[in-house]
Amino acid sequence: METTDSLTTLAATKKAVDTFLRAYSQRRIEEAAEIGEGYARLRQAIDRLIIVGGKRLCPYMVLLAYEAYNSQGNSHSVIPAAAAQELLHLSMLVHDDIIDRDHTRYGIRNVAGSYQDFYQQFTNDHHELDHFSASAALLAGDALLADAHSLMRQTERPQPLVRRAEAIMSRSIFDVIGGELLDTETSLLPKGSIDPLVIAEYKTSTYSFVGPLTTGAVLADAPESDIELLRQFGRHLGIAYQLKDDLLGIFGDEAKTGKSTTTDLREGKQTYLIQAFNTIASQAEKNEFYQYFQNIDATDKQLERAKAMLRTTGAEERVKQKINEHHTTCTSIIRELSMSESGRQALTALLTLCIERES
Amino acid sequence: METTDSLTTLAATKKAVDTFLRAYSQRRIEEAAEIGEGYARLRQAIDRLIIVGGKRLCPYMVLLAYEAYNSQGNSHSVIPAAAAQELLHLSMLVHDDIIDRDHTRYGIRNVAGSYQDFYQQFTNDHHELDHFSASAALLAGDALLADAHSLMRQTERPQPLVRRAEAIMSRSIFDVIGGELLDTETSLLPKGSIDPLVIAEYKTSTYSFVGPLTTGAVLADAPESDIELLRQFGRHLGIAYQLKDDLLGIFGDEAKTGKSTTTDLREGKQTYLIQAFNTIASQAEKNEFYQYFQNIDATDKQLERAKAMLRTTGAEERVKQKINEHHTTCTSIIRELSMSESGRQALTALLTLCIERES
Repeated sequence: METTDSLTTLAATKKAVDTFLRAYSQRRIEEAAEIGEGYARLRQAIDRLIIVGGKRLCPYMVLLAYEAYNSQGNSHSVIPAAAAQELLHLSMLVHDDIIDRDHTRYGIRNVAGSYQDFYQQFTNDHHELDHFSASAALLAGDALLADAHSLMRQTERPQPLVRRAEAIMSRSIFDVIGGELLDTETSLLPKGSIDPLVIAEYKTSTYSFVGPLTTGAVLADAPESDIELLRQFGRHLGIAYQLKDDLLGIFGDEAKTGKSTTTDLREGKQTYLIQAFNTIASQAEKNEFYQYFQNIDATDKQLERAKAMLRTTGAEERVKQKINEHHTTCTSIIRELSMSESGRQALTALLTLCIERES
Repeated sequence: METTDSLTTLAATKKAVDTFLRAYSQRRIEEAAEIGEGYARLRQAIDRLIIVGGKRLCPYMVLLAYEAYNSQGNSHSVIPAAAAQELLHLSMLVHDDIIDRDHTRYGIRNVAGSYQDFYQQFTNDHHELDHFSASAALLAGDALLADAHSLMRQTERPQPLVRRAEAIMSRSIFDVIGGELLDTETSLLPKGSIDPLVIAEYKTSTYSFVGPLTTGAVLADAPESDIELLRQFGRHLGIAYQLKDDLLGIFGDEAKTGKSTTTDLREGKQTYLIQAFNTIASQAEKNEFYQYFQNIDATDKQLERAKAMLRTTGAEERVKQKINEHHTTCTSIIRELSMSESGRQALTALLTLCIERES
């Protein structure tokens, strides 16, 4: 297959971006050490997250789209832009973890978690420990957000194209902050006041899918009509990705996802799945369901019953239908794109990966 | 005076930057409203801080340095860069307030404060209220940091100069995060492990003084030797500014500074003033002083005694001497600069303003 030798296989992207990011992160540790030992410690906590990393889907999409319009070009010139997307993603995850009060990411201690471990020798007060470790994570996220901008500038493509890619990144950040805020407020504001699909679009689609795909296309100077199509593709794929995430959060295999399948239920996460249940279920079913949902004291057996209800009422099926609708839309968009055939194949494979994944 | 008609009088800068920022902020509110009402609310909380604002010293320094090397040029082309410095500053203040758990800034409720007022109708739990309002402020600071980058791109100067100004901003952010972290850790780590002058340099000098001054000079394509001199000038001025801040925090007139003169003592803020006291004072003096210092139960009378000790031991005088040393260095740097005479006058006036200020 044509793509095998290029960067647009996920494993090859991961390796190229990893190498670039590791060198960048190492320089940052050294520069921080010149300011103070404490600052080097922060950059080391960031470095551990960069090294472990996630799927590197964001940089993959930048390179996929770039090569789909520039098969003769040197993909290495856009590695900084691809790496920038990864740091932007990580920045938002670090701040998201503060908001969610999580201390684990990618199976290791995140920044706040690392500082919990380090600061505990200096204080016995749990509130203080939480506050100071969250403060360190706050600064780490800021550092990563600034780094994403720095890396973008290193992209070796014509300046007007890089400028346009930077404008896309700014818009992505604007959107994801809105999505994150709305998502945060669902835990606090009256139920039903915020549409979960709007959150999926702004919290997931724009910066994790639309941003990387259009960045790659813009840097390859792709036709305007294709950039607009990729924007739509990314939007639909991102929503489908989030809906799949919601299903995995309830019905997934914990051994594969690494995530508890009871947390979302106990915390009462307002997903599209729950919205579908509210629309479909009878009053009696709702009465029972809401005894277990968002009840931190619910037993495992009760939560199993809640899960079964999400299935038997047809709510799960409705989410699957919704995912299929977005899948279908994505497939027809791929046919309209004027990119290379190998690019189209890679996009189709990406679509399958995102929708059929079990983790 | 030549500068009266130009932008480099503080009042004129404030007005030009205010007008630009207000229009920008208004557009951001409208764009946020398209995503959701909740997001518009966040941008409105940001907008209130932008409108009230501070001294606008950061944008002033950008314009001062720009005009000092480009007296014929149109200063309006660099207003976006000047405004970007203000938003960067505000971003860091919003995040600094989270770390310091402050709910007031510029005499009004800051972002976290605004959200304390808004969210209290949805929860009775004070910890939850603190967490969610801090989360909103976290996102507001992220938004401002991203906005600073967006505005910088709008600077209407040759691209290589704008690129260089952006690199300065990235370095400023890298430095200020280090300074902020070290400062935060002084409250937690063993006393004396972090030098207050290093904190002053990285937390104050680099992004509030070196960044704006060198940004203006770079955008005016000033000689390299002058850019390096301005870097040194900004470094010394920033440290002097911080030392003056420390003095005002203990000996200032609360009616003028708007800040309590007992907070720093009660919280045990590790300033250069305290370091000087530790060096000069006898063991008996230290024994007495540390009964009052970092003692939240200390009476006003005891704190008056602590203040008197900082004076009688000569610690205050030593800080004043240090400020004078930096002042003298700044004055001699001004003589070496090849900028316009009006630029030199403006820098001298800035120096006096920063060092002789009472608020």
